[in-house]
Amino acid sequence: MATPSTHAARPSPPPRPPVKFCSACGAERIELRVPEGDTLPRHVCAACGSIHYQNPKIVVGCLPEFGDQVLLCLRAIEPRRGLWTLPAGFLENGETLTAGAVRETLEEANAHVAIGSLYTIISLPHISQVYMMFRAKLVDRRFGPGAESLDVQLFDEDSIPWEDLAFRTIGRTLRNYFLDRKLGTLQTRVSALERKVVRPDLSGAG
Amino acid sequence: MATPSTHAARPSPPPRPPVKFCSACGAERIELRVPEGDTLPRHVCAACGSIHYQNPKIVVGCLPEFGDQVLLCLRAIEPRRGLWTLPAGFLENGETLTAGAVRETLEEANAHVAIGSLYTIISLPHISQVYMMFRAKLVDRRFGPGAESLDVQLFDEDSIPWEDLAFRTIGRTLRNYFLDRKLGTLQTRVSALERKVVRPDLSGAG
Repeated sequence: MATPSTHAARPSPPPRPPVKFCSACGAERIELRVPEGDTLPRHVCAACGSIHYQNPKIVVGCLPEFGDQVLLCLRAIEPRRGLWTLPAGFLENGETLTAGAVRETLEEANAHVAIGSLYTIISLPHISQVYMMFRAKLVDRRFGPGAESLDVQLFDEDSIPWEDLAFRTIGRTLRNYFLDRKLGTLQTRVSALERKVVRPDLSGAG
Repeated sequence: MATPSTHAARPSPPPRPPVKFCSACGAERIELRVPEGDTLPRHVCAACGSIHYQNPKIVVGCLPEFGDQVLLCLRAIEPRRGLWTLPAGFLENGETLTAGAVRETLEEANAHVAIGSLYTIISLPHISQVYMMFRAKLVDRRFGPGAESLDVQLFDEDSIPWEDLAFRTIGRTLRNYFLDRKLGTLQTRVSALERKVVRPDLSGAG
């Protein structure tokens, strides 16, 4: 299960530093207000007028296939260290979606893939992220843990560690995949996951 | 054609203020360097250690259909004031993709839509944007220009102002749409547009 990380890898997800000072002029005069002609409050510098927009980030990754098996990575970093995931990470400036998915698979699993169709697109509005997962074919059986992984393995459907998956996006992508594969309907799926509601235990067992 | 705007609407795309001062501590000690465990240079504050990541933005929008016609907006703001576009804009924090597409269509065209399938996804790595355009059905014939539009009209394929479209993403989406509609193959399309290369005129005509 998740334990504190001592691994020297980049934090993931990167924390967004607070907007307390203006990055353009240095003034400590940031106001949260709706700019003229806009509809939402933004961080606006009262000294120089700079508007510091914040927008959702894209997490891009792969569902790497080898025959009937899929490749999963055991996370070496927080959040969710010690749980299994598909190779994925933040899209970088200057990068296309497919280039980002290929790069993350190489970085996290040392695996080379031939990118396939876009499979799941999942909005996570409560953390302002959008997951975009591509199907991909492993080009050979060479793979192994990158700096952000403790282990990398191929899994049959029956051996997927369903209880030890790192993120709900990954569980949804894998469940859809094995179902759609049986049905022969692997089309692009667009969905959303809202904030997880932790319900009190009403079973009386605990 | 595009002329300077005097319209009081939010700038689009929003300029990103320079990272000269640290937004967390105010120090003018920003260094562009690769943080430990990372692979790419980031804006790092040498005073407090804050890392100021910059990532691509999502532009989300609709291709609103009414019978055989599609709805286009004449841009009232820069860039590309006076040219036609599909309703689209930056996805906001806290928003799902479909909610953003519906909101932009309401804001720019005062039109209510029933969202359909995700149609085109176009990476623009040179400006670090990803366009995501949904098919959508206009729920009625009521529409009209919002604050960022000068005009809103329905167009048949034959009347689309192909020479006066605002963005290459919009031209590609519309061309694909009319072709795919004829072929009956309206599946999700993933592509990329690289920086436009302006070639010297070698025709001798100018």
